[in-house]
Amino acid sequence: MASNLVRRVLTSIADRGRTFLGGASHAPIDQLCRDLVSERGEASGTAIAREITDRYGQLNAAQRLRFFEGLLDAAWLADPAAVLALAQKYHATRGPAELSKLFSAVEPRRQELFRRINISPRGTETIVQMRQDLLALLPQHPKLEPINADLIHLLGSWFNRGFLELRRIDWRTPALILEKLIAHEAVHEIRGWPDLRRRLASDRRCFAFFHPALPDEPLIFVEVALTQGIATSVQPLIDAEAETGDNSHADTAIFYSINNCLEGLRNISFGAFLIKQVVHELEAEGLKLKNFVTLSPIPRFRDWLAHSEAAPVLTELLRLKGPALAKALGAMTLTDPRRIALRRACAKCLTTRNGNGRANDPVAAFHLNNGASVEHINWLGDTSEKGVQQSFGLMVNYAYRPARIERNHEQFVKHGRVAVSGEVEKLLEEPKAAKADGKKN
Amino acid sequence: MASNLVRRVLTSIADRGRTFLGGASHAPIDQLCRDLVSERGEASGTAIAREITDRYGQLNAAQRLRFFEGLLDAAWLADPAAVLALAQKYHATRGPAELSKLFSAVEPRRQELFRRINISPRGTETIVQMRQDLLALLPQHPKLEPINADLIHLLGSWFNRGFLELRRIDWRTPALILEKLIAHEAVHEIRGWPDLRRRLASDRRCFAFFHPALPDEPLIFVEVALTQGIATSVQPLIDAEAETGDNSHADTAIFYSINNCLEGLRNISFGAFLIKQVVHELEAEGLKLKNFVTLSPIPRFRDWLAHSEAAPVLTELLRLKGPALAKALGAMTLTDPRRIALRRACAKCLTTRNGNGRANDPVAAFHLNNGASVEHINWLGDTSEKGVQQSFGLMVNYAYRPARIERNHEQFVKHGRVAVSGEVEKLLEEPKAAKADGKKN
Amino acid sequence: MASNLVRRVLTSIADRGRTFLGGASHAPIDQLCRDLVSERGEASGTAIAREITDRYGQLNAAQRLRFFEGLLDAAWLADPAAVLALAQKYHATRGPAELSKLFSAVEPRRQELFRRINISPRGTETIVQMRQDLLALLPQHPKLEPINADLIHLLGSWFNRGFLELRRIDWRTPALILEKLIAHEAVHEIRGWPDLRRRLASDRRCFAFFHPALPDEPLIFVEVALTQGIATSVQPLIDAEAETGDNSHADTAIFYSINNCLEGLRNISFGAFLIKQVVHELEAEGLKLKNFVTLSPIPRFRDWLAHSEAAPVLTELLRLKGPALAKALGAMTLTDPRRIALRRACAKCLTTRNGNGRANDPVAAFHLNNGASVEHINWLGDTSEKGVQQSFGLMVNYAYRPARIERNHEQFVKHGRVAVSGEVEKLLEEPKAAKADGKKN
Amino acid sequence: MASNLVRRVLTSIADRGRTFLGGASHAPIDQLCRDLVSERGEASGTAIAREITDRYGQLNAAQRLRFFEGLLDAAWLADPAAVLALAQKYHATRGPAELSKLFSAVEPRRQELFRRINISPRGTETIVQMRQDLLALLPQHPKLEPINADLIHLLGSWFNRGFLELRRIDWRTPALILEKLIAHEAVHEIRGWPDLRRRLASDRRCFAFFHPALPDEPLIFVEVALTQGIATSVQPLIDAEAETGDNSHADTAIFYSINNCLEGLRNISFGAFLIKQVVHELEAEGLKLKNFVTLSPIPRFRDWLAHSEAAPVLTELLRLKGPALAKALGAMTLTDPRRIALRRACAKCLTTRNGNGRANDPVAAFHLNNGASVEHINWLGDTSEKGVQQSFGLMVNYAYRPARIERNHEQFVKHGRVAVSGEVEKLLEEPKAAKADGKKN
Repeated sequence: MASNLVRRVLTSIADRGRTFLGGASHAPIDQLCRDLVSERGEASGTAIAREITDRYGQLNAAQRLRFFEGLLDAAWLADPAAVLALAQKYHATRGPAELSKLFSAVEPRRQELFRRINISPRGTETIVQMRQDLLALLPQHPKLEPINADLIHLLGSWFNRGFLELRRIDWRTPALILEKLIAHEAVHEIRGWPDLRRRLASDRRCFAFFHPALPDEPLIFVEVALTQGIATSVQPLIDAEAETGDNSHADTAIFYSINNCLEGLRNISFGAFLIKQVVHELEAEGLKLKNFVTLSPIPRFRDWLAHSEAAPVLTELLRLKGPALAKALGAMTLTDPRRIALRRACAKCLTTRNGNGRANDPVAAFHLNNGASVEHINWLGDTSEKGVQQSFGLMVNYAYRPARIERNHEQFVKHGRVAVSGEVEKLLEEPKAAKADGKKN
Repeated sequence: MASNLVRRVLTSIADRGRTFLGGASHAPIDQLCRDLVSERGEASGTAIAREITDRYGQLNAAQRLRFFEGLLDAAWLADPAAVLALAQKYHATRGPAELSKLFSAVEPRRQELFRRINISPRGTETIVQMRQDLLALLPQHPKLEPINADLIHLLGSWFNRGFLELRRIDWRTPALILEKLIAHEAVHEIRGWPDLRRRLASDRRCFAFFHPALPDEPLIFVEVALTQGIATSVQPLIDAEAETGDNSHADTAIFYSINNCLEGLRNISFGAFLIKQVVHELEAEGLKLKNFVTLSPIPRFRDWLAHSEAAPVLTELLRLKGPALAKALGAMTLTDPRRIALRRACAKCLTTRNGNGRANDPVAAFHLNNGASVEHINWLGDTSEKGVQQSFGLMVNYAYRPARIERNHEQFVKHGRVAVSGEVEKLLEEPKAAKADGKKN
Repeated sequence: MASNLVRRVLTSIADRGRTFLGGASHAPIDQLCRDLVSERGEASGTAIAREITDRYGQLNAAQRLRFFEGLLDAAWLADPAAVLALAQKYHATRGPAELSKLFSAVEPRRQELFRRINISPRGTETIVQMRQDLLALLPQHPKLEPINADLIHLLGSWFNRGFLELRRIDWRTPALILEKLIAHEAVHEIRGWPDLRRRLASDRRCFAFFHPALPDEPLIFVEVALTQGIATSVQPLIDAEAETGDNSHADTAIFYSINNCLEGLRNISFGAFLIKQVVHELEAEGLKLKNFVTLSPIPRFRDWLAHSEAAPVLTELLRLKGPALAKALGAMTLTDPRRIALRRACAKCLTTRNGNGRANDPVAAFHLNNGASVEHINWLGDTSEKGVQQSFGLMVNYAYRPARIERNHEQFVKHGRVAVSGEVEKLLEEPKAAKADGKKN
Repeated sequence: MASNLVRRVLTSIADRGRTFLGGASHAPIDQLCRDLVSERGEASGTAIAREITDRYGQLNAAQRLRFFEGLLDAAWLADPAAVLALAQKYHATRGPAELSKLFSAVEPRRQELFRRINISPRGTETIVQMRQDLLALLPQHPKLEPINADLIHLLGSWFNRGFLELRRIDWRTPALILEKLIAHEAVHEIRGWPDLRRRLASDRRCFAFFHPALPDEPLIFVEVALTQGIATSVQPLIDAEAETGDNSHADTAIFYSINNCLEGLRNISFGAFLIKQVVHELEAEGLKLKNFVTLSPIPRFRDWLAHSEAAPVLTELLRLKGPALAKALGAMTLTDPRRIALRRACAKCLTTRNGNGRANDPVAAFHLNNGASVEHINWLGDTSEKGVQQSFGLMVNYAYRPARIERNHEQFVKHGRVAVSGEVEKLLEEPKAAKADGKKN
């Protein structure tokens, strides 16, 4: 009974609180924001902050735009003259005390506003929502970027990994949270509750990070399959009818899907922490796991190939789409030169950088930056329409080897070098010898 | 069994984690700090951060001083030339985008260091400890103040009231937490477990704020007695042998002690939020409470009196101390001119400000700033040695009246005006008429 | 993380436990049962009990029959000579001490067997399962009834209401439990998760009893709708697309479905306790509810009518089935004599007893025995195929009025008198005057 | 906040419940008991049961005696004629169905009364209290024994080990529970909270069984010290000032105190289960423990010796008491013939039975019946006043060796044979050779 009764009581407390602190104000939201950072805010902060979060929730898109535009006003910035004087002083002295004073003077007053809004019972939730709304406005209203910068600064500090809680998600998890997995799984769609149930069976693992201020909101979650040998194709892993495996034979953990849930936390990254922490959890579980690898899509492979000097054998293939393409791929034998060329091209795509010095594929960028290596390139790894369309059905295993993570990361970040397995190295090095897939494919 | 097993498992995970991420490093702590904010830190952040928190815990006082001095190095500051250029640009444009860039450039790199240390399992705990250690060093080493400013900025943001959890403390609370109340009660000492037990009986309430990252550490707690009528003397409230009252007759909640627990969070204030939130909790409990008042000491009253133009009748009294003073006070009748003069002086002490515009007494400053009013000045309110010594045994009731809090606060902050009850007003206004205490005293 | 880690650890403990206590035995299950009540059982009870529960789970139907037949052996009974002697002594003395000795001698040794099986980690679960299996065998093997009597005696004592925990079920409940509601809802089928989600929305309530030894098994659950006015038709209540109501206008709690989940606990009744406890919970919630009524099927009405002297106007109707019947019912106006006759017959069915002195309808028996009254008889209350077939679409509201429950129950139990509303009384008393339905229908 | 709010709400529910079900009755408690098992009880059982538990709590000793005497009335027994007829039938047929009917007829109606009282919110608690009160009355009122037999039967079934929960007790445990350890530790007194804190330090373990219906009441608890080598003296283990040991060196778990807490559950034994379960828990913890032994008093040794044919060298010693005895014992060297004779006598005391076939010492009876062996007899094992007085300071280590428990138990129960170590065997077999203590002592 506990939690339900508590909820009722808490709601009642919140309602009383409102009355207690003077009732709903009728001031406009921008006035409330100014009040909140004034002396009034010191005495009645909770009530005003609650009023702001309630009010914000009722704004329509146009009102939200106006609200954000208001936050660009000089009143929310810093005193230019004072700032300049302190900057000159710091420049002259290079002293820590001078920097400290300058830092304090430079902080936009908006930051204090957001911190005070956070004291509302729904404060953190509202601020994350504000960021989501802001991101939607930014493309049309780039001038709002400074507000985005403030929110990134604040949310990055508040959602520090040290404050996150890792929870295992399974069939005992409240439905309230499970339905959010269904909603946010964007890599391999979860088609309803029976599908979800299979993904939480005893040969699967699912973990998510939560923040104490948003206890019902998974921030990011990862889905793992325990398998014997390294899975090279995703369809068996997400088949709702697949038989449940016996973990006593499992030697491999396949990370086959990782998803962020809150758009308002975009670019505030927890993924690397999550994967590494889950490796720990799985090790602590006492299974006999030797391999921790992903089974990942290469969403930009086709795009990249279309703009590269693709091998001539691939020219025709690049024109195919949908079922025709799927059929062509399905018919290729191990020695089909197009198959060989595609795998080689994929290896190249994953291990080189584009003109801006960035990885050609965002998923590759994420795992390589985390210190993973490119282990296998899997033919017909994802035969779904999306998989065929994006990457000719290819999937890649990135391997997380604890002892090599740091070195891999440094090599990748400093020198752009990508760690690869022998198999992938062969694909890259010996264009003529690589006549066929390895046995694994 | 759950929590114990979990603890064992978690410890084991932490131990594995260490191994997993490369084992203990032998680099000095300042090198580890530099690593943590480098690329290495991105790949192995958790392991390095853990190493830093372990290592910090083993530093002696001299090493800690050296550690903090190292954080004043230019490497932990910001680029003066870049900062100046951006400040000039902001000064010229006054634009939010320019401020945003400047703000980003100005932040001392130490802030990022502390944020990364926080990802260690004991990160938050260590950072709070660092602040405590730093505060101990500051008087002798004022140059460390910029580090203190950084920590205040970070901790103020992280310990935002929106992240705090209010918990009731009672006899069901783990002993681990209860012993911290005993340790940190500084107003009216708790003399062991039977004493504590009485303070948590059914006619008492105790609440504390906790932060999710420090789940076993009360940050601040308040002790409340439920009484019939407003208590004017603290001794009956803290008497371990006192009979337990019947709450069905209670009409008043007396806040008789409020204490901060973590020195490392000094000046990061939760007190105002705590009192107001506890008023809500008590209202929600369904008791028939009409008054929410404190019973507070006036720790600086004697000091203030000694430096004021005290009434001539008090001259001799000011020379007395200890038992002699207690005896003299105890013997004064209602009409004793010294008694009248002391209460009047106290009312003046509480309602005026010193040369710097600050309240004469820090407890008064806290409650008046929160929007409370001065309700009663109680003769022989605290007959303990400390009470007699600090304030001639006087205690004061500050009243929290929801409807007046905001106005009281504004009057106090903007105009220095203190809200008082009719009784206190009389003490202040009619020096000749005030011949005797009110009935209540 | 907690619960998951704990589960792993506990499984590991259980596995060790097995080893620790001597490993799996190869003795047949009946030998293990004899061992368990012997001296061996005193030393190694947990291990043997665990072995029995494991082994029982693997028996097929034929083996289970043999297992139960074995429990009829003289060895599991009591010493006839000793029993007779003690019975004679009790008959002669009529003394409590003599009865006490006799009671102790008479208890079948099977009871001790079941009590010892219960110390296995899955003991309670297995014993409930045994009862379920036994119930399936009983119709063909009535000689097993004495074992059933033993299990009823034990389970009735163990599942005493004092040991049950009432929990609210809502969308925060673990999916593991929610899927059991879907499986066991037998009155108004739950057609998957979206359907369930609607039944747990904010204008609905669901409560279940749990036993601490079976923490994931709801024993019985009730579904409640909060409505304005007394609902007379069930279809709007179970419509997954229905809009969520506003509880501030609700004055009525409709108990529209109550289901037992564990066949092994058949006839060990919690339903009366559940309804009354849920009335308390709803009252404690602070809503403004005035009516606590069911909306119930009358599953035996058609059967009863077919065997009664039905009004001649109904003769033809009794021959109709399925869509034809539904169509005929749907077309009847308020004054249709068949409609009047059906409602009157229903009132009679609910308020009279059959030749054996039992209520004509089991649902009626349950609520009337609980002290409820017959409030309304609703035309087209359940237009589902089942509703039309069983009771010509009629449904009944039974009302729970706290102040009348005890008297209603006594009247019903002692004198067979059924409490009815004025409306129903009219239906019963004035066959000619009752020309039309009340306004409510 | 949760638990506190919930408690408030639950109390409020209970209060409403009372009103709801008709308010406090003024009938005498024996009338209420009769009502509870009547039809009234079926309708209003919870309210009547609550009334009975409230009322019982207010009875004084004389009223309690009258209450129990009332339960001996014929009305609470069984129908002698019916019972006799059914017993004759069972005797004639020896059929399980006939026994089943007889069993049902024989059960004293008191059992149903107690089962119905149990549905009160404080039911289980009250019934345990009734047993405690009854035990206090029994010596003077042996006629009440049949009620005791009923309560033993019921409580034995309800407190079945399968329903108990093992919880670790440590410094995180609520003070409410910890204070009960202080109150119930009867072997080695806990002298206040600092003493308790030491016993719950990291090199100690404490576990207790709880029943779900009495969640704040430890039923039985065991205190364990983790040591390097087998401790031979208890004083270092209970020294509040002793340094905390390093568990990485521990190879032995010493069970040095085991206590029952609820007098009302006397003779409903959980001790054997507790020790074995705690052995599992400690094994699961991952420490490197090889030995699981007790360090136990021999409370009846002196009594036994006084009534045995003690060796002549002990004659004088048997006359000493208190400090004189302690001094004499402390002065005995390894070769002192009295020291040798005492240890030998102790070995004999522990391994023989008295005239009634029972163990000479109750603690020995408990452990030997559990399957433990007599491992060491320790000189100056307990130098407290009680230890010296009861057993000349001797203590004994009983060893729990998983692989031998079953055989030891059977040998002890069937043949009275006690398993002993080589050391103890030597003491027993070779009276002349045993010139000195083993090295261990």
